[in-house]
Amino acid sequence: MAKYEQLADRLAIQIKQGIWQPGEKLPSLRKQSSLTGYSLMTVLHAYQLLESKGVLSARERSGYRVAESVEVSSTANAVQSAESVSVNDFVFDVLQASRDPHMFSLGFAYPDPSLYPRQHLNKSLAAAAKQTTVTSALDNLPPGNQALRKLIAQRYAARGMHISPDEIVITAGALEALSLSLQVVTRPGDWVLIESPTFYGAMQALERLGLRAVTVDVTPENEINLAAVERALQSKPVKACWLMSNFQNPVGYSLPDEKKQALAGLLKKYDVALVEDDVYAELYSGEELPWPVKHFCDDGNSLLCSSFSKSLVAGFRIGWVAAGKHANAIQKQQLMSTISTSVPVQLALVDYLETKNYEKHLHQLRRALHQRKLAMYHFLHEHWGRFAKVHYLQGGYFLWIEFCPNTDAMVIYKIAQSLKISLAPGKLFSLSGEYNHCLRINASFELTPSRRQLMNKLTNKIKQYLEQF
Amino acid sequence: MAKYEQLADRLAIQIKQGIWQPGEKLPSLRKQSSLTGYSLMTVLHAYQLLESKGVLSARERSGYRVAESVEVSSTANAVQSAESVSVNDFVFDVLQASRDPHMFSLGFAYPDPSLYPRQHLNKSLAAAAKQTTVTSALDNLPPGNQALRKLIAQRYAARGMHISPDEIVITAGALEALSLSLQVVTRPGDWVLIESPTFYGAMQALERLGLRAVTVDVTPENEINLAAVERALQSKPVKACWLMSNFQNPVGYSLPDEKKQALAGLLKKYDVALVEDDVYAELYSGEELPWPVKHFCDDGNSLLCSSFSKSLVAGFRIGWVAAGKHANAIQKQQLMSTISTSVPVQLALVDYLETKNYEKHLHQLRRALHQRKLAMYHFLHEHWGRFAKVHYLQGGYFLWIEFCPNTDAMVIYKIAQSLKISLAPGKLFSLSGEYNHCLRINASFELTPSRRQLMNKLTNKIKQYLEQF
Repeated sequence: MAKYEQLADRLAIQIKQGIWQPGEKLPSLRKQSSLTGYSLMTVLHAYQLLESKGVLSARERSGYRVAESVEVSSTANAVQSAESVSVNDFVFDVLQASRDPHMFSLGFAYPDPSLYPRQHLNKSLAAAAKQTTVTSALDNLPPGNQALRKLIAQRYAARGMHISPDEIVITAGALEALSLSLQVVTRPGDWVLIESPTFYGAMQALERLGLRAVTVDVTPENEINLAAVERALQSKPVKACWLMSNFQNPVGYSLPDEKKQALAGLLKKYDVALVEDDVYAELYSGEELPWPVKHFCDDGNSLLCSSFSKSLVAGFRIGWVAAGKHANAIQKQQLMSTISTSVPVQLALVDYLETKNYEKHLHQLRRALHQRKLAMYHFLHEHWGRFAKVHYLQGGYFLWIEFCPNTDAMVIYKIAQSLKISLAPGKLFSLSGEYNHCLRINASFELTPSRRQLMNKLTNKIKQYLEQF
Repeated sequence: MAKYEQLADRLAIQIKQGIWQPGEKLPSLRKQSSLTGYSLMTVLHAYQLLESKGVLSARERSGYRVAESVEVSSTANAVQSAESVSVNDFVFDVLQASRDPHMFSLGFAYPDPSLYPRQHLNKSLAAAAKQTTVTSALDNLPPGNQALRKLIAQRYAARGMHISPDEIVITAGALEALSLSLQVVTRPGDWVLIESPTFYGAMQALERLGLRAVTVDVTPENEINLAAVERALQSKPVKACWLMSNFQNPVGYSLPDEKKQALAGLLKKYDVALVEDDVYAELYSGEELPWPVKHFCDDGNSLLCSSFSKSLVAGFRIGWVAAGKHANAIQKQQLMSTISTSVPVQLALVDYLETKNYEKHLHQLRRALHQRKLAMYHFLHEHWGRFAKVHYLQGGYFLWIEFCPNTDAMVIYKIAQSLKISLAPGKLFSLSGEYNHCLRINASFELTPSRRQLMNKLTNKIKQYLEQF
């Protein structure tokens, strides 16, 4: 085969794979030549051959483009993995479904991104672009940017929590913080206490780290029962407790302060590390920012994890852990896994917190979430109230829906999907397939007239399904 | 205690912890009041009380600042962890030592950051700041930004490697790519084949995932021996092979193409997944970009990991894996650990690759690294040649130094540290404390006259140490 035919073959395969897409311009003759090492003449012959086959089209002065009519094979199927872990696959599907911009994403984990101060953040990002220096990458190695850690400590300080900047480690979102935390306080085979239902990320982390779960049941009406916690701690040599004490995901309860204090005491008594997920705390709708359980812990054995992803910006992937005596161990684990979080976004957050009004944004965000959640609650209560219990609790942006026990929420999930509505089915939050008659609804999106219409359609279809019983 | 005394006490503790540092401005009366919920009058009284104690100083029209003379306790020691894993601690110490901007960082893992195109990258970051949309966070969920994956696939395509954008997953640097890769192709307890010496990140990942290592020895003169590989694969049920075939870290060898092909055949024969670390490939100094082993694999069971951290920018933390049939499994693992990489830096890289001249930058970077490495080699060969073998191999920016077998490179490491030179001691790259007579030297920094002087001092001190034998 001549060289130009070899190159043409190679390019044809690339076009089939979608590396160059219909209508897209190919590298110029000169660039292709320097990239591939073929002579200009060989490249020209290859391009001409593909043009004669209808794969490329040449335009005066604008080079060669992939023909609009060219066939592109969908390779997405070729990369399907044979491996499968049921809950994980399912979480993945739910998250992927929420990606579709045409979806009404009631299964989404983040608040409506239009509530974030995008223009201010973009300005801060542009400012950060001017600030990076030769040594920026070093300055931002674990534990992370010093100024950012101080700003986070200052916000805790303003509420009266004494968290030293030195115990804070910046992470890739709260999930990395939680996962590193669990890792440094456990060894494979250890027992960990979690709530049920619980955030699926907790179950995934336990599975990945080879840990065993003891669960304590919670409901919207009955937040975690301390007697049950103590029984669990007595029954197994529990090493860590992973929980959310504020606006728990998915059911929405918050622990009152006296229970937080009592829980802190219990964990200390049994020498159990606390891994606390506090990402929703800033989204309170009462008078005051609630305390984390860590506020009541005095032995340095609690790891408070949070992030800016739910309250300021989802895409930066910046979280942190206030890790007490485990701060150094966390840094080491991070150096071994992701090394550090991205420098420019750390700098942009410092700029945002220093020059923009975060408190004002939070105030507006809280108000918007409160209003939207109320509106969604009223809608659901009115339309679904006869066949489901719609739990409303203050704070955050989730509603927990309970159908009759024999309802299969997976059917409702699929009905909704056919209407381009994503939902988070209850069994996503269970280790053992429970809560299959429940749904978690993200109530942070505005109920526009067209969305109300869509929800009415969903309501009718759910009624049809329920009439079978 | 009166309220203002409570607040004053709280602020005094915060100042002692360094949350507010000497000379730093405290929040205004109004801001402090809104942050803490105390009345303006209470805040004023608290500030005045602290002023009277000399903790704060008030300035006309500029508010209250922490007094310059105030004592700050160093809390860094308070957060030391009791846990210790020897190699990990050591790696951590070496990395932390390299952070010091006054250090001559010959132990550093990255090329001299001044060789990166910072201005172009900053422009791209500023451009990205204008491009983020409401749905950016969704668009950049695993597998990562579509345009970025296509641009990476196009660079492979230009060399004749058919890697579909669909099998590429964007990660937090190559280390996350490697770590996720190892995770999806193994279960705890499995055997993994690695080189010895090897990149410490490989050993750390094995340890973290509970995997067992079979090692195959390599030296600068003798790259990985295929007969030894086959014996290892026969002796243990090896599930994966983690290696670098180009400019291996730390010794610097590259496999010739025929050996890469034979290795690919061996791995296929024994059904072993290939986890390939190819971060130095772009830094070749010969005629052509070398192939990865994956180029010779045809069964989709090879995971090619790389990043922009060594060739374009260290602080963005953007890498990728071309994961073949494992692409979906990788995405799921990522969703469970870091969720996704930061959006703005992905967008900035797309802008950089589309609008700036990456090839030209690489050309300049390669030339600079080649020249600097040669200069460092000549210096070391001239001054250390009588007591050490300085290995020079084409490509990358590391030199591997071998002293006499009874030399303790840890002593040299400490001598260097006292002169503000960081080094990477050989045993960093060993599972069993070998190579303690070796050093890895980062030769990417310019040998300025003052650095030559410093190196002369180091040379003299090493000679003094070696005279003891």
